[in-house]
Amino acid sequence: MERNRQPPLTVAIQGEPGSFSHMAAEQLFGPDLRLVPSRTFDALFEAVVSRRADRGLVPVENTLAGSVQGNLDGVLRHSVHAVAETRVRIRLCLVARPGMVLSAIRTAASHPVALQQCHTFFRRHPEMEPVAVYDTAGSIRDLMSGNASYDAGIGSELASRIYGAEIVQEEIEDDRENYTRFFAVSTEPGSDPGPRPKTSLAFVVAHEPGSLHRALGTFAHRGVDLTKLESRPISGRPWEYRFFADVRGDPRGDLAACLEELRGLAAEVHVLGTYPEWPGLAESSTGDT
Amino acid sequence: MERNRQPPLTVAIQGEPGSFSHMAAEQLFGPDLRLVPSRTFDALFEAVVSRRADRGLVPVENTLAGSVQGNLDGVLRHSVHAVAETRVRIRLCLVARPGMVLSAIRTAASHPVALQQCHTFFRRHPEMEPVAVYDTAGSIRDLMSGNASYDAGIGSELASRIYGAEIVQEEIEDDRENYTRFFAVSTEPGSDPGPRPKTSLAFVVAHEPGSLHRALGTFAHRGVDLTKLESRPISGRPWEYRFFADVRGDPRGDLAACLEELRGLAAEVHVLGTYPEWPGLAESSTGDT
Repeated sequence: MERNRQPPLTVAIQGEPGSFSHMAAEQLFGPDLRLVPSRTFDALFEAVVSRRADRGLVPVENTLAGSVQGNLDGVLRHSVHAVAETRVRIRLCLVARPGMVLSAIRTAASHPVALQQCHTFFRRHPEMEPVAVYDTAGSIRDLMSGNASYDAGIGSELASRIYGAEIVQEEIEDDRENYTRFFAVSTEPGSDPGPRPKTSLAFVVAHEPGSLHRALGTFAHRGVDLTKLESRPISGRPWEYRFFADVRGDPRGDLAACLEELRGLAAEVHVLGTYPEWPGLAESSTGDT
Repeated sequence: MERNRQPPLTVAIQGEPGSFSHMAAEQLFGPDLRLVPSRTFDALFEAVVSRRADRGLVPVENTLAGSVQGNLDGVLRHSVHAVAETRVRIRLCLVARPGMVLSAIRTAASHPVALQQCHTFFRRHPEMEPVAVYDTAGSIRDLMSGNASYDAGIGSELASRIYGAEIVQEEIEDDRENYTRFFAVSTEPGSDPGPRPKTSLAFVVAHEPGSLHRALGTFAHRGVDLTKLESRPISGRPWEYRFFADVRGDPRGDLAACLEELRGLAAEVHVLGTYPEWPGLAESSTGDT
C-alpha cells in the first residue's frame, strides 16, 4: 500500500497542518506523509499539476453546508484524476493556550464556515465574539505562536495536539451529523479500485426538453446507482449548467456501455476518476440512478 | 403595480443600502421602497416572517460562484413564498474618498466572494492588499464614515453614489458574465404570474435506482421545460439530498397533472412559488425537462 512506500507520500492540502484536510490525508495514506500546505485551492491544484505533491486532498461536499463550491470545477479544469475518496467527521473544539479557562475567553477565531456551524455555542456565550480567519488549524497555530489578537481558536483535536494547545471544550458544533467528503487527486488515474468501484463524471446536456432525463436514463435503464448529482454554472455561459454525477461502477467494466450511450446524448462528458468507495460511513443513494 | 402603492413597500435585504440586493429590489419594485438591512440571511427571513418587511430579496445563484448556499433551504424552512425573480449584473467598482488616486491605494475591502471575482485586478496591482469584510456596500459605507482602516471599497456604482464616494476604476471584475439571480419572498403566495409563469419546487426521491430519473420523467413526458436542477444536503441525514427544480409553468394550470404525478413518486414535494419569468436577460434551459 502507499503508506509503506519510500520516500513518504507528499500531499498538498488547503490550510495548515492540523486541518480537517490533514485528517483526511492521514485517513487515506497513514500518518507518514509530507504535507504541502497551500493557501488557496488553486495553489493546491498547482502543487499537484507541477508534481511538487504526489496527491492533493480536496474537500468536495459537506453534509451541512453542501457542495464545496468550485472544487469539482477545479478537478476538471486542472485535468487531475480523482483517485480516492474519504469522509471526515467535523468535530470542532474550542482551543486555547494551556491554563486558559472558558469564562476568560472573549474572542474565538476560525474559518467562517466553522464559525457558522457553532451558532448555538456562540448564542450560549454572548460574551464571546467570533473572529473570521482563513483556516481552522491556522487559527490555532497563530494563537500558539503569539501572532493572534484573539483568545481562542476553533478547530480539530489534531490541530490542538500539533501546536501544543489545550482543548477548552469539545464538540461545540451545532450538529453532530457534520461530515466532509474529500477526493484525493493526482496527475495519474488511480489503480484497481477493488470490489466497490465508484466513478465521478461531468457532463453537459443540450438545451432541449427532456435532455437531462434522457442522460440519466443511461444509468436508470441499467440499474446503475447514482449516489450524487450536482449542477454547477458554466463560466461565461450564464444560466447554463454542467452536471457532476457519482455512480457506482467502473468505466472499464460495467459502466462502459452506459458511458458510450451518455457520450451520444450529452456534450463534454469527462470521467473525473474511478476509486474505491469509502466504507467508513454508510452512504445512502440519492435514491437514484 | 406594487411600486405605486402607499405606503412604500418595505423590503428586507442582507447587507447595506447600495448592495446588489438593493439593486435587485429597485429593479423589481422601483426606487420608492423602505429597506430593512439585515446582517444575516436568517435575520432577513425573520424580518419577512414577522412582517416587519413586506418582501425579502434573497440571492439564490450566481453565474460564476453557483448556488448561494442555504438560501433555497431558507425559503423552504421559513415557509415563505417566492413571488418574483430578477437578475442583476455584478459590476464591481473600486471606490474611494473623493480625490484618492489609484496609485495611492494600498488596501481594498469587500465581501470575500467579490474579492475573489477581482483576482486579475489584484494580480495586476500587487501593491494593493484585499481585505475581507461582510458586505460590498458596507465596505464603502464604513470607508466614508471614517470607520475603516482600508483605503478603498469594492462594490456597486449605487453604493458609491449613496455614500458620496468616488469611483476610481469601473468593472474591475474578472468576468463580465457575472450575474446574480434573486428571489423576492413573501409570507403570501404571488398573484397572477402573467403569460410566462415559472415555478420553483423542492422534492426528495426514494433511495432506489431510477427514482430521480422517474421523478424528472413527470416533466419530460409532458415537454415541461426544467430550467434549473440543484441538489442540497438534508440536515441530519448525511449523504441524502433534496432537489430544487425550476420549471416553466403554473401548478394551477399546465403543471397540475405533473405535480400530482410527482407527489406519487417523490416525498416532501413543496412548491416554493410561482412567479413571472424575468425577461431581462435571455435564459437558456439547462437543456432539460
